[in-house]
Amino acid sequence: MSIQSHAQDAQDRYFMMLAIEQAKRGLYTTRPNPAVGCVIVQAEQIIGQGFHPKAGEPHAEVFALKEAGTQAAGATAYVTLEPCSHTGRTPPCALALVAAKVNRVVIAGLDPNPQVAGRGVKLLEQAGIEVTVGVLTEQAEALNRGFLKAMRTQMPYVRLKIATSLDGRTAMASGESKWITSTAAREDVQKLRAQSGAIITGSETVITDNPQLNVRSEQLDVPPEKIPNPKIVILDRRQRLKHSLQSDYQLCRHPDTIYWHEDDLSALLAKLVSEHQCYDVLVEAGASVTGSFLSQQLVDELIVYQAPCLLGEQARPMVDFNPMSLAQQLRFDIESHQQLGSDLKLTLLPL
Amino acid sequence: MSIQSHAQDAQDRYFMMLAIEQAKRGLYTTRPNPAVGCVIVQAEQIIGQGFHPKAGEPHAEVFALKEAGTQAAGATAYVTLEPCSHTGRTPPCALALVAAKVNRVVIAGLDPNPQVAGRGVKLLEQAGIEVTVGVLTEQAEALNRGFLKAMRTQMPYVRLKIATSLDGRTAMASGESKWITSTAAREDVQKLRAQSGAIITGSETVITDNPQLNVRSEQLDVPPEKIPNPKIVILDRRQRLKHSLQSDYQLCRHPDTIYWHEDDLSALLAKLVSEHQCYDVLVEAGASVTGSFLSQQLVDELIVYQAPCLLGEQARPMVDFNPMSLAQQLRFDIESHQQLGSDLKLTLLPL
Repeated sequence: MSIQSHAQDAQDRYFMMLAIEQAKRGLYTTRPNPAVGCVIVQAEQIIGQGFHPKAGEPHAEVFALKEAGTQAAGATAYVTLEPCSHTGRTPPCALALVAAKVNRVVIAGLDPNPQVAGRGVKLLEQAGIEVTVGVLTEQAEALNRGFLKAMRTQMPYVRLKIATSLDGRTAMASGESKWITSTAAREDVQKLRAQSGAIITGSETVITDNPQLNVRSEQLDVPPEKIPNPKIVILDRRQRLKHSLQSDYQLCRHPDTIYWHEDDLSALLAKLVSEHQCYDVLVEAGASVTGSFLSQQLVDELIVYQAPCLLGEQARPMVDFNPMSLAQQLRFDIESHQQLGSDLKLTLLPL
Repeated sequence: MSIQSHAQDAQDRYFMMLAIEQAKRGLYTTRPNPAVGCVIVQAEQIIGQGFHPKAGEPHAEVFALKEAGTQAAGATAYVTLEPCSHTGRTPPCALALVAAKVNRVVIAGLDPNPQVAGRGVKLLEQAGIEVTVGVLTEQAEALNRGFLKAMRTQMPYVRLKIATSLDGRTAMASGESKWITSTAAREDVQKLRAQSGAIITGSETVITDNPQLNVRSEQLDVPPEKIPNPKIVILDRRQRLKHSLQSDYQLCRHPDTIYWHEDDLSALLAKLVSEHQCYDVLVEAGASVTGSFLSQQLVDELIVYQAPCLLGEQARPMVDFNPMSLAQQLRFDIESHQQLGSDLKLTLLPL
């Protein structure tokens, strides 16, 4: 790893940004693999680019090298994740870069996957290739929060989504709740689902709302039929969804729906990683399940779609949660806030 | 009023923006007068600028013309509000502009004050001065919402402020509530108070919190001693604040505190305009008073300081309001959202 000039820094950031744009193209389809992009640059010109589209298909580097052809010799490759060093479903990309005789490889961040973990860099350096690590790391890692967390901790990255009014209500006391948030907010939820390996909900939500929780948007850049539907997990501690009832509910008709009858949500999350390779998990449930995940500190990111309306104090609260004092409140950092249609989207990180 | 070129449009907007910046300097001190700024431009150079600092002191045009001196002849004057045509505490500014022989006057918006209302423009045009009206009208009017609304409707512009958690709670069930929002949010409330002619609160808030509700910030560009403290109005329908109790509470020690014992809040607002010249009114009260103002549609602007925390469903709700169905909900447009310290500030306009 080398000391760089400011001009080279700026150039590296620019091309890495383009590599990240490439990676984004695979965001909804690469599961359980990470989304990765690659750009190959010769004399400040892009001569090849690519992204990993889907598990089992070639990695980003392979597509980019193919486009570059023999021009790759002496070029610089920008990759959003450390090139792999192991033979999985495809041969190691680090070796492909060596074979193509690139001169330099710039990497956003190392791959914490124990099968790679620095070995990709070592392989490149042993072949005499200059390697720079750490360009736009944060932006690149933002694409693969689930994969990175799972590789590091064997637990998934958990997003919890709530649609609520300004006064923290999700429905009237009667249950009446249609269209609290706008079309734009509901479209955005499709993006959350499309990047999730599993969606967790509760039997109460299934029985009350009979939701589909599938990816059905036509506005995701990728046709919905190419996006694998997330695995559905129904929390059903009291075993309310008896076999005889299951045909009544859309979610229960999926042959691979997981029913979780235990209390231990942490064990469920660990199992989703170890047995199902679900690294990004979305919780879309009612106040009770939401309260359990939040108060047990199992949430990495809280996403609130807040409609600018007041439903009143008799309406249903967004979270079943009863701290005894201010000291027991749950606090968050605001990561971002943006208007979506007539609503506000807040992304919050638990403190 | 004349047809303009694009270049002149751009130039007009630029100098009007500077005149608006001048006007802002008087935002906290001109009550009940509007905040007005003036910039005088000769051959694209600013030769004079000024703002109205305080009722009884000269208007913006007078300061700007004084700075411009004899150079004002042939110049263009940019004024954020139609120059006055009547002799009030000061002589009419329209005549001062005529006497200074300016060539052209650009005005952001007409003055709806029945004593002016287009007569300023007429006076200028009769003297052969070219007049352009309607440059950055919205931005200029944003500085004087109360004055403009009161002149047009004889009712004040009502801002209602709530500090709440993400789940719409203002305090724990026990009443524990200190420091839900951050210092930055509390500082911002000082700005709301500083531009208000009156602050309305409820006897419940007085008895429970014994607040001061005064302007005490050192961070307002204007020293706090120059900012007139808003008139205090206490809603006390049940006459809980008996004379013998009043010395216990900070707000009751003000000799000119207004006690309102009636139900009719609309009558109170009308009286604040007609008898007290309070055109900008701020409501800072508990859930009950807040609920009354909102459900009676007496609020022009709802300002929510939202702390990113969850206090739980037993905590106190932000609004006493009980719609029977979704159709009776209160809905708003989001005018702006910004982060203030660790909190979010939402400015909402009732639909």
